[in-house]
Amino acid sequence: MEDQIFQLQYALDTFYFLVCGALVMWMAAGFAMLEAGLVRSKNTTEILTKNIVLFAIACTAYMVVGYDVMYGGGIFLDGIATEGAADGDAMVAAALAASREAGFDGGSVYSDASDFFFQVVFVATAMSIVSGAVAERMKLWAFMAFAVVMTAFIYPMEGSWTWGGNSVFGLFNLVDDFGFTDFAGSGIVHMAGAAAALAGVLLLGARKGKYGANGQVNAIPGANLPMATLGTFILWMGWFGFNGGSVLKLGDIANSNAVAVVFLNTNAAAAGGVVAALIVARLFFGKADLTMILNGALAGLVAITAGPDTPTALMAAVIGAVGGVIVVFSILTLDKLKIDDPVGAISVHGVVGLWGLLAVPLTNSGASIMGQLVGAATIFIWVFGASFITWFVLKMVMGIRVSEEEEYEGVDITECGMEAYPEFTMK
Amino acid sequence: MEDQIFQLQYALDTFYFLVCGALVMWMAAGFAMLEAGLVRSKNTTEILTKNIVLFAIACTAYMVVGYDVMYGGGIFLDGIATEGAADGDAMVAAALAASREAGFDGGSVYSDASDFFFQVVFVATAMSIVSGAVAERMKLWAFMAFAVVMTAFIYPMEGSWTWGGNSVFGLFNLVDDFGFTDFAGSGIVHMAGAAAALAGVLLLGARKGKYGANGQVNAIPGANLPMATLGTFILWMGWFGFNGGSVLKLGDIANSNAVAVVFLNTNAAAAGGVVAALIVARLFFGKADLTMILNGALAGLVAITAGPDTPTALMAAVIGAVGGVIVVFSILTLDKLKIDDPVGAISVHGVVGLWGLLAVPLTNSGASIMGQLVGAATIFIWVFGASFITWFVLKMVMGIRVSEEEEYEGVDITECGMEAYPEFTMK
Amino acid sequence: MEDQIFQLQYALDTFYFLVCGALVMWMAAGFAMLEAGLVRSKNTTEILTKNIVLFAIACTAYMVVGYDVMYGGGIFLDGIATEGAADGDAMVAAALAASREAGFDGGSVYSDASDFFFQVVFVATAMSIVSGAVAERMKLWAFMAFAVVMTAFIYPMEGSWTWGGNSVFGLFNLVDDFGFTDFAGSGIVHMAGAAAALAGVLLLGARKGKYGANGQVNAIPGANLPMATLGTFILWMGWFGFNGGSVLKLGDIANSNAVAVVFLNTNAAAAGGVVAALIVARLFFGKADLTMILNGALAGLVAITAGPDTPTALMAAVIGAVGGVIVVFSILTLDKLKIDDPVGAISVHGVVGLWGLLAVPLTNSGASIMGQLVGAATIFIWVFGASFITWFVLKMVMGIRVSEEEEYEGVDITECGMEAYPEFTMK
Repeated sequence: MEDQIFQLQYALDTFYFLVCGALVMWMAAGFAMLEAGLVRSKNTTEILTKNIVLFAIACTAYMVVGYDVMYGGGIFLDGIATEGAADGDAMVAAALAASREAGFDGGSVYSDASDFFFQVVFVATAMSIVSGAVAERMKLWAFMAFAVVMTAFIYPMEGSWTWGGNSVFGLFNLVDDFGFTDFAGSGIVHMAGAAAALAGVLLLGARKGKYGANGQVNAIPGANLPMATLGTFILWMGWFGFNGGSVLKLGDIANSNAVAVVFLNTNAAAAGGVVAALIVARLFFGKADLTMILNGALAGLVAITAGPDTPTALMAAVIGAVGGVIVVFSILTLDKLKIDDPVGAISVHGVVGLWGLLAVPLTNSGASIMGQLVGAATIFIWVFGASFITWFVLKMVMGIRVSEEEEYEGVDITECGMEAYPEFTMK
Repeated sequence: MEDQIFQLQYALDTFYFLVCGALVMWMAAGFAMLEAGLVRSKNTTEILTKNIVLFAIACTAYMVVGYDVMYGGGIFLDGIATEGAADGDAMVAAALAASREAGFDGGSVYSDASDFFFQVVFVATAMSIVSGAVAERMKLWAFMAFAVVMTAFIYPMEGSWTWGGNSVFGLFNLVDDFGFTDFAGSGIVHMAGAAAALAGVLLLGARKGKYGANGQVNAIPGANLPMATLGTFILWMGWFGFNGGSVLKLGDIANSNAVAVVFLNTNAAAAGGVVAALIVARLFFGKADLTMILNGALAGLVAITAGPDTPTALMAAVIGAVGGVIVVFSILTLDKLKIDDPVGAISVHGVVGLWGLLAVPLTNSGASIMGQLVGAATIFIWVFGASFITWFVLKMVMGIRVSEEEEYEGVDITECGMEAYPEFTMK
Repeated sequence: MEDQIFQLQYALDTFYFLVCGALVMWMAAGFAMLEAGLVRSKNTTEILTKNIVLFAIACTAYMVVGYDVMYGGGIFLDGIATEGAADGDAMVAAALAASREAGFDGGSVYSDASDFFFQVVFVATAMSIVSGAVAERMKLWAFMAFAVVMTAFIYPMEGSWTWGGNSVFGLFNLVDDFGFTDFAGSGIVHMAGAAAALAGVLLLGARKGKYGANGQVNAIPGANLPMATLGTFILWMGWFGFNGGSVLKLGDIANSNAVAVVFLNTNAAAAGGVVAALIVARLFFGKADLTMILNGALAGLVAITAGPDTPTALMAAVIGAVGGVIVVFSILTLDKLKIDDPVGAISVHGVVGLWGLLAVPLTNSGASIMGQLVGAATIFIWVFGASFITWFVLKMVMGIRVSEEEEYEGVDITECGMEAYPEFTMK
């Protein structure tokens, strides 16, 4: 009868992973809608194309090689992919033996395939962050080439040093030596994506007309704010899977309590980010700036992601609110530095991702500011450096920026051959 | 070994709550899209802003004080918020003791945090109903101030008299004395939201140009019907969590059967509402009026919400269909009374919410028409009265209506400083 | 104590069904958005109306009679609908007895209502496929009449021969005699929907202006590509429920492994379809054709649906990629044959659905090419034939095509009385 209980727990934990994974996959739609809403209509088809293609590339590249780099699952998922066709009885016996060893209320035992499914949608999230920052002027095919390198290699490498538990080039171990803690990826996923984006943006330059000769910053409004708002709500919802699934186990009292606390805190942090960004925007611009509010929600979510399991709900709201304040000033600062990020991705995911890492020691005694800083620096240096080299090679080989005329006309026609809203906009 | 079974049941019930809560949170996106699609483009940014901000305010205010008012959880969620950091072993022991006491197939035992998460998204739903009704002419900051009062106090008070089980100002007890039954909130959530909206609309007045001098009603078409349709589908999906989660327990045969019946009936009622509204609109307007059909779907959902557990699927479809008929006539009647509700929220959630309460005794022998009427009257009088006073004070203090010029220009520019579709509309 | 374990397993399996069913219901929103994005703005309200109404009709007709035809559950769901009000103790005892008989790791035992809920959303999916193919020129009321026949009778008949296990008019049994295997419905749902659509399209004719006198094909671009992309992402997400739920059981190690493999393979196939369609479009059109990419994603999903449980992830990606190649050529071929399908539904669901059926024997030794061909032919002949007759009768009785003037003006005004985007488009 104990076997039956183990079987049920295995099934419940697997299902929990799959539901959370489906929610994270849904975040791909959120990024697509957010970015499509925040660019101009002439560049909308292209950004939609980038978003769906990068998701497909991420799933494929991580399956073929990335997962092996990060966790050693074998390229082409050798160990996992045959599961469907494998000898069922042997698999069940092995899972039962593992369950017995882990004990109830102990380690996680669940389907390998569900683990891969959950992991692969994280890779896509990291890559989705890049697409918004380089919008409206990057060549589509250069972007896709970068996506392959990022999802097959750059992300899995830093993932292997953190969640994978491996040492950094044999030099030191972030987790064992420094106690680096990043629950669901404020740094490992979000700051990493932003670092890759920053490298691209620096090599790419700003959009024509964004920065005037006299230092003025010209607003380039997005074409479809309901779409951007929808994207934000999708991301908010998907984040329950992102953070909630990162407990990695549900099937007993302690773990299900942890999952519930993570859901609660994730929501509270997003709410805190909204309220803070609303107030800051009101004070500084005199208006309820919707795009800042949307970024505030996302900032709250990014901020709590490194440690959603330890704060109280009130503290989670505060951590999110600080994220919401930071994101407004970060966006203004990047514009002063003429770093042109059409959707604010570098601020939301990078700057606030760092804040998320640094906030962990406030409520988690297992983490230290030093450990978090070392981890953040390691991730940033690696991802920024490797990405810069990759973007640079792409720039030399095929070019990464569209021609000035294409940029003026919009990249939709030249890259994708069709307009996003052919009936709504004047030529 | 019994402990292990209790642990699994606790985990399953907690997960069920969290999944249902995530679906209800998703309804916030549904309201945002529905309302953004049904207003004019010049007021779209503002209604998006209202929807995301009210969700954040609801989450924060209910956490800080509302939950304590309704269920006595302690302000700042004293009892819950520390769960993440609490002594894990003691918590597990307490949960096991509670499980043992409740017995299998008995009372619900699950994570407090999951309960709060599920409850808080209901508060936001109630408040979302208001935003549509007052659209296109209300001051944004007055709306936000009202949202704080509604979610911290007005809703939690009536919630404490119903789901909280407390007596109404010590006078009588709706549940114990009158057998008032409202499974998932046709009255407690939907009619309450509509009552608050009605109070605001009466003090606010109709939009300029809506009602002509000779009694004619001018249609003001929404700017984006695909968005409104998406919103309806989102709400339909989210309602599975709204009603399904209100069984409050999943983990045995009897309760999981109940949850399944609730899902089935919720879907059947929505379908009934669509078909009925389609037919009525065809008969009266000669067209398949999409906005009426969308309201028919929502009316079906609101109608079944008070008692989705007792009807057969066919009866659920009938209850929903009656809701779909009522909503069409209610919308026409409110327009005759010059009560201007741009999205039909008062009809959908208020009038049909009342129908939902009154339909419960048809299939649930534990409820009576009298008890339902007393409950409905109590909720309506309290929420309408308290809201009227709140709106009135806001009107005196800061004003609740934008200037005539701002209304003509659209509130997006004055309140939010940006247009929702800057490239699609002519000035 | 064994009873308690059975109760938990029953609850978990029921919940799994309900979650998957909610995801499949969500696909209705996906079809609505996809189709609304791919038609012109003047026909958008009507296609939204068709999509929400067909879902309601499908739910109602399948409840009233279709489920009985397919599985013999009794018209009006006699056996299921009373579950809510039934004698709880007797039901629990019966479920326990069934669980004991099925044994752990044995047959599925779960709520009847959850089974119906899962099945009914499949019917709606089949019907959703039709609405896109006949877009922009079909009479709304003729479409609705067809929806009743399709969901009450045509689909349930072929469903009874396959998932229902009945013989085809007493002549032969597809499953027993031919080993026909269609895991989640590449043929039973998708090709069936496409066959019904093809019959309608042949009787309806092409849209005015689609095919020129000299054989040229005129592109008629969709009005809102972000909406179409959103629809594709929704369908992708919903497909996890569609395929994942079709394992029919979750609650032990073997079955939860199977569900996880199905999720993984469903995602891999969609990704494969995207990459393949991207490359083919690049080679043939020189552009990253977004609409082809979206169809590639859907083609990957349709292709894997007949057998997502047996391939490795890499093989699933290949099966999906072949689907992505096929769909591009199929769309081009249908246009050469002047079969006008505005959204490519016949290619995506029909041609690729056939590919999905034929791919099963590649990884599933229980299936044969011959058996799959017999099954495909049976489904196609029945659905195409019965649909053709139905459309033909409708054409005689009420007409199925709008007038030339109505087609020119757009069907939104004549059929629904309102525009989808009244402020964005010029008259």
